[in-house]
Formats: sequence, C-alpha cells, structure tokens
Amino acid sequence: MHELIDEADFKELQALLADPARLVRSSSELALHAHDESPHPQHLPDAVAYPLDTPEISRLLCWAQAKKVPLTPWGAGTSLEGNPIPAHGGLVLDMRRMNKIINIRAEDLLVIVQPGLLHTELNQRLAKHGLFFPPDPGAPAALGGMMANNAAGIQATRYGASKRYLLALELVLPGGEVIRLGSQARFSSSGYNLKGLIAGSEGTLGVISELTLRLMGVPPEMAAAIVSFPDLQMAAATVVGIVQAGIAPAALELLDAGSIKAINAFKGLALEEKPTLFMEFHGNLAAVRAELAFAEERSRAQGALDFRSGLGRAERDRLWEARHQLYYAAAALNPGKRAIVTDVAVPISRLPQMIEFAGERLAQLGIQGPIVGHAGDGNFHVGLFYDPAAADELARAGEANAAIVKRALELGGTATGEHGVGLGKTQFMESEHGASLQLMRRLKGLFDPEGLMNPGKIFPA
Amino acid sequence: MHELIDEADFKELQALLADPARLVRSSSELALHAHDESPHPQHLPDAVAYPLDTPEISRLLCWAQAKKVPLTPWGAGTSLEGNPIPAHGGLVLDMRRMNKIINIRAEDLLVIVQPGLLHTELNQRLAKHGLFFPPDPGAPAALGGMMANNAAGIQATRYGASKRYLLALELVLPGGEVIRLGSQARFSSSGYNLKGLIAGSEGTLGVISELTLRLMGVPPEMAAAIVSFPDLQMAAATVVGIVQAGIAPAALELLDAGSIKAINAFKGLALEEKPTLFMEFHGNLAAVRAELAFAEERSRAQGALDFRSGLGRAERDRLWEARHQLYYAAAALNPGKRAIVTDVAVPISRLPQMIEFAGERLAQLGIQGPIVGHAGDGNFHVGLFYDPAAADELARAGEANAAIVKRALELGGTATGEHGVGLGKTQFMESEHGASLQLMRRLKGLFDPEGLMNPGKIFPA
Repeated sequence: MHELIDEADFKELQALLADPARLVRSSSELALHAHDESPHPQHLPDAVAYPLDTPEISRLLCWAQAKKVPLTPWGAGTSLEGNPIPAHGGLVLDMRRMNKIINIRAEDLLVIVQPGLLHTELNQRLAKHGLFFPPDPGAPAALGGMMANNAAGIQATRYGASKRYLLALELVLPGGEVIRLGSQARFSSSGYNLKGLIAGSEGTLGVISELTLRLMGVPPEMAAAIVSFPDLQMAAATVVGIVQAGIAPAALELLDAGSIKAINAFKGLALEEKPTLFMEFHGNLAAVRAELAFAEERSRAQGALDFRSGLGRAERDRLWEARHQLYYAAAALNPGKRAIVTDVAVPISRLPQMIEFAGERLAQLGIQGPIVGHAGDGNFHVGLFYDPAAADELARAGEANAAIVKRALELGGTATGEHGVGLGKTQFMESEHGASLQLMRRLKGLFDPEGLMNPGKIFPA
Repeated sequence: MHELIDEADFKELQALLADPARLVRSSSELALHAHDESPHPQHLPDAVAYPLDTPEISRLLCWAQAKKVPLTPWGAGTSLEGNPIPAHGGLVLDMRRMNKIINIRAEDLLVIVQPGLLHTELNQRLAKHGLFFPPDPGAPAALGGMMANNAAGIQATRYGASKRYLLALELVLPGGEVIRLGSQARFSSSGYNLKGLIAGSEGTLGVISELTLRLMGVPPEMAAAIVSFPDLQMAAATVVGIVQAGIAPAALELLDAGSIKAINAFKGLALEEKPTLFMEFHGNLAAVRAELAFAEERSRAQGALDFRSGLGRAERDRLWEARHQLYYAAAALNPGKRAIVTDVAVPISRLPQMIEFAGERLAQLGIQGPIVGHAGDGNFHVGLFYDPAAADELARAGEANAAIVKRALELGGTATGEHGVGLGKTQFMESEHGASLQLMRRLKGLFDPEGLMNPGKIFPA
C-alpha cells in the first residue's frame, strides 16, 4: 500500500490535536476503520484521528489539503454501501468522541448536537422532554452520518427522512474554513439551500461538526399491528391501498416469508412464516383507533390471514427489535456468506410489480435472499447472499442487483432510497442522473477541488 | 434606458419561437412585467417571451448566453420582494402559457405539471381525485414561482413548504442545456440534492420547465376555529403552547387588531377587532375533535375572550378569503401608500418577544402597520406602510424593517421565511449568512458564470 502519512506527517498531525493520543495507527484501529457493514472491499486508512472540537477538525482539513492527503469522516460505521470506507487511504476522522448534546431547547422543539452522537442516545435523553427525533435507520447510527446519508428508516412514511429535521449545521470545508448554514427558524427562503445540499452528500463536500435538529412531540398514543398474507403481492397491494388513502402510519414494513423465518430463528419468535406487514400508528387515541380500523379493513379486503393489533409495549418492542436485526438474522441463516443489499425506491403504485420482479429474478438466478422494505415509501431491500469464495455466486448477486436497479429506474424510481451511493451504487449514477451527474461533479469540484474528501464515493471512477 | 435587445435581436428571438407573436414589446406588456406586488423600483424589460415548451426555453437561454442579455423567469407576478422584476432589463420569460397538467398519477399521489400552472387551478383539478397540493401562499401564484421561492403559506405549519413536495424537475440551465433532477420515488439518497438547491433559488440558477409534485390525500375532516384575545401577547403565547404540545394544526394564523379592522372594512365582516387566531385542523373526525378541544383549553387558559369553532364551510371560506386578501385590505385602509412587508421567522418560543419588539418599534417610529403571521411556524409579517411622496416615511419604514430583521437574526431566526430574498432582502444576506454567502456566490458562478439569470436578486451588489 502506498504510504500516504509518513512518520513526519504523523507527528505533524499529532501536534494539531490537543492530545496527541487521539491520533492512532495501531493495526487494530486501522482494521476497525477499514470496513462498514457492507461487503465492499476493505481498505485501511493510514491513520485515524478522534477530534474533540471544530478547531481540531479545521486544522486536520487544512493539513490534508496542504499535503493532498485523502480524508474520510466516520460516524458509527453502520452504513451498508461502503460510505465511510477510506477507499483511497489517508486519514479517517472518527467523530465518535464528539457526541455531546450541546443544548436541548424543548420550548423550541429543537436540539443542538455534536455529529458523533447516536440517534438512539439522543432519543433516550429527549424522552423526559416528551420529544423525539423521528428518523430511525435501525442500526445505532451517528447523527452526523445519518444526515450525511439522509437516512430514512422505518418511520419515514409518516415523518420523512433526516433532511427534513435539519434546521442548521456547522460545516468544515476542505481546507479548513468553518461555515454555518441554516437558522433555528422552522422555515426559511433565505438564499440557497446549502444545508439541504450537504444532507445526503456522504461526507464528500466537508465535515459536519455540529447539527441543529428539529424535533417532534412524542405522540400521545402509539399502536402496532402485525398482519400476515398468503402471498407477497397481497401484502404489497395492502400497502398501496393504505398509502393511496392518505393514511400515514408511523411505520409500514413489509417482510417476506424468508425474513420472518430468519427473525423467528434469530430471536426465538414464533411468527407465522408468511409475508407479513408490521404497522405502527401514532397520534391521539381517537385518531390511532380510526387508522387501525381502516388498516384492518384494507388488509382483510386484500385477503389477510389475520390482523393482530392491541399488542402490548413489550411485544411491540420485540417485533421492532426483530425487524431492526433482520440483517443479522438473515446473515445467521447464511453462515459464511456476505450480502449485497439493494435499496431501490419506486412510486408507490409500482411496488407490487417491482417486488414481483425482484422475486422472479432471485428465483431465476437461484439466490436466497429476504425481501423487506419500508413499503409505505415504495422503498425495499433485498439481501442478495453469496459465498465470497464462489466467484459465480458473487456474479449472480451482482447481476440480480443490477437488474433490480435497472427495473426501478425504468419505473421512475431511484437506485437508493436511504442507504446512499457509497461505493456500491456508483455504477448506477450515470443511468439514474444522466446529464445532471456532470453538474454534480462540478459541484464537487467547487467544494473540493483536490478531490480529497471521502474519495471514491458517489461518482463512478 | 440602455437598449439590450435591438431590432435585429428582436427578430432573432422571434425566430426562436414557433410563433413569433409570442415575443412582445408593447409598452403595456413591458409595463406589466416591470413590477410584482412589492414596492420595489420598477424596471422595464426589453422584451417578453411566452414560451410554450422546453425546447423554446432552451433556445432562448442559449441566445441570451451568447448575446450576454439578462433573462428573468416570470410566474404570476404575485411575489412580494421584487423576485421577478427584471432589474437589469433584458428578456422576461413569462411562463404562464406553459400551464398544463401533464399527468395526474393519483395512484402514486403525484402530478406532473408545467411551471406556469397556478396552485389554485391545480387544486381545483385535483379535488375529484381526493388529492391536494398543500402549499398555499394566499395569492394565486404559479407553481414554478412557488418552487423557485420555496413558498410556504398558511398550511405550512402542518404540511411544510413547497420544497417538501418537489419530487423531480426539469431545469433549463443558462446556455440552454436541459437536465432532469430527482425521481418519482418518495425518497432518495442518490447523489447530491440538486432539486432541493433549485427550490428557493429564485430563478437565479436556471429556468424550471417541468415539475413533478408529491400530493397529499384530502383529509376526511376539516374544522376551523376563530379565537380573540385581549392582547397580542396572549395570542402569541397560545400559539407557542399549541406548537410545543406537538399539535400540528393545518393553519395557525395570528392577526392583530389592525388586521381584523382592515379585513372587516374590506370584506364587510363584523369580527371583533381584537388580536385573533384563525385555526384549522385536518384529520379524521376523532382526531380533529381532540385537537379542537386541546386548542380551546389552551386558548382559554391563556385568557381568550371567546373560542368559536363549528363554523360552516361558507363561513370558513369567507374567513380564509379575508385572510388571503389582507394585503389588499390593509392597502385599502392606507390609500396612496405603499408597504414594505417584513417576513422574518424565529424559533417558536421567541415569537411573543419578537412580536412585542415589532409592535414597540412601530409605535416608536409612528408607523401604522398590520401584524399577521403564520405563527405556528414562528413566521410573521408586518406591513410597513409609507407615503411614497414622503421621504421620511420611507426612511422610517426602512428603519423598522432593518430593526425587525436584526432582532430576528439575533434570536436565531431568518430574514425571510417564505417570500424569498428578491431585491428587498439582499441587504440582510451578509449578516444572516456570513461566510456561507461567499459559497453561495461561488455556486451561482458555477451555474451562471455570466450572471445573466435574474440578476440583482439574492446577492447584495
């Protein structure tokens, strides 16, 4: 490997941090930052810094620019497309020690946080104020990483993705300049929407050093339902009917029979191994009851085998925990295998045909893989498992992945609903974005003319 | 005036349109496109084109770039900050003949439209599908202009501003290249969020030639309430209490006594001339009832003089129509005067002190002006009326405007919640955005290196 940070560089970098011990290059630290949860090729950084404040980040970015060393911000490492893998080596900025809540302003329904804070930790701290931050990608992700990837998750059907909750941010630009974007007001038409551009830019335009997030009041009532169907098409059609009626469940998750089997095995549950919807409804008591009744009527009209609501808190928590751990559950059923995880989203009416297409393609190619999705948003995932030692399996998984993305784009959809482009989806950017990809490249060049920020991501080589 | 489009140019431009009659320069046409509804200095364009399709727009932009002629897109001319005034002359592109609905995809809760369509016309056409496009700035604005200014309006408290409904758009770049941004999926993390950058860019980065908009289901129930208070502070405190409780009324409008007086006179109503809240609630019947009961309890606890709900459809329509026409109503009470309209937004808890500050400043400066706002979002407007013939009145209105914006920025707010920067707010951009304004300038240069697109807007000279 080309040595990008030599002994003298390492000493210079140490001097930029208040405590030199926060710059590390032990083999275990490097290995820890060589991969996320995706199967993409690992790549070691040359060193890892743990900054504690914005001036440290700024000095590191200034140094990296002067030395032309690649620099990749790191949240919690939970992403699924290689987004934080230091694909060109260089310096990783691990933000996890910048995990403070700076200010909870309950009276303004907002919070100011450092980017390394996990959304799960934030929500624990907010509970006593009756507030919460809705985006929930399942994994315990860092808020900076969630914003950088515009993470959505299971509650996006009702609450939208991370970007909607971004009031303001502090950003360190390549070269070290620190700027602030946005305000604490709930809406603004003042100048260009730069904060909305940083959301979803995957750390390729700068390093987020502080976030001001809009919060929601915890709804007075929450109710869940679990509904199983004879086939996946009926389940998908039920989702479409609920969304088309303008009902906005807090969650509307579709799991195929294979997914249920995986979580039964992994979590010791005894759910019926049929295509299943997990639903959740938020609001006042009366509203929740009315939405549950509507969802039940729709489900039964589509041929639901049962409709179980009125679940207790403990049972709901178990279901959602099982859903959140589905990736690990499916992996446990496929020992020694790895998975490409698709993330297409399509217009809601196209969801049944899209899922049917994916199922047929998997069958044709002889691939085992759970199908699961934030179906209320037309977004779903297929886990395409393959044996890393068997080149033909990887080839078939890649073929299925490409076919699913191609079909989604034909139906007016997108290659990635919530995981971001990272390394894995760069191959689809040309066909998804056409001429606007060139404009994106020019934008990248405006922020980062040396191409040092998280290189190798978003854009095909 | 410097002649930017001479006889030969005019003939060249005519040849770019399928029908040469769609290029005009009669004095009445030029005068019509010299002003919006703001008091900003009028400026005549040299010619006005009415394109009918994207290729025509593209040819016009290509020509303008080659000839270095300024070009300003025009929606319905209803903006309040001079946003579409051709401040540097040149060519105006009046989009109003591109007002078709291309495709209503009710099953996907989306619609594809041309940018000259008015939101009021769209909503009439959508009604039979049980769908609507929520942003409502009051005036019958064109959808392209609404998106270009990220218009919000009275329903933004619940539904958010225009940007939230932008799924995809077609954009003609300076020079004439046509690109498409976004997809028909309800969310995406694919590449840079360029569509969110175009929303709110006020026609300074290109011309929107097509929009794909997300729609909402018409809620099964709607209810309104009208509540009057002994003073403005009590009304503002009630708003804060409702928002802090996590209730999201569809509208939560605050009107001061002067505003009520103006609409009584203008519309022949007999509302009590006290600070008043207009509220609207959307949802299923049970949810609406519960929210109404909560709002009533909060209002009475804050000292409301009355709480009238259960209004019939006709009465509600009259109230909202009166609210929408407040600008004209206030103007009618101030014959011969013009008004600077402030548009600050602040964090919700700061709303009472911000409104108190504005009222005090008006009293000190001896200015009459209604205070009215989308209070649920911390956004409000003050109409600062002045006699155009009296230089001291204009100076005092300007002084009040600057003081109100300065205070809003100190409180963490923004100079403009929904009207956009246009000509009138350029003076505040440096203090609001600091170093990030320079980045916005560089972005502008990336899209429009010649500075021809709607020049004079957003950036201070």
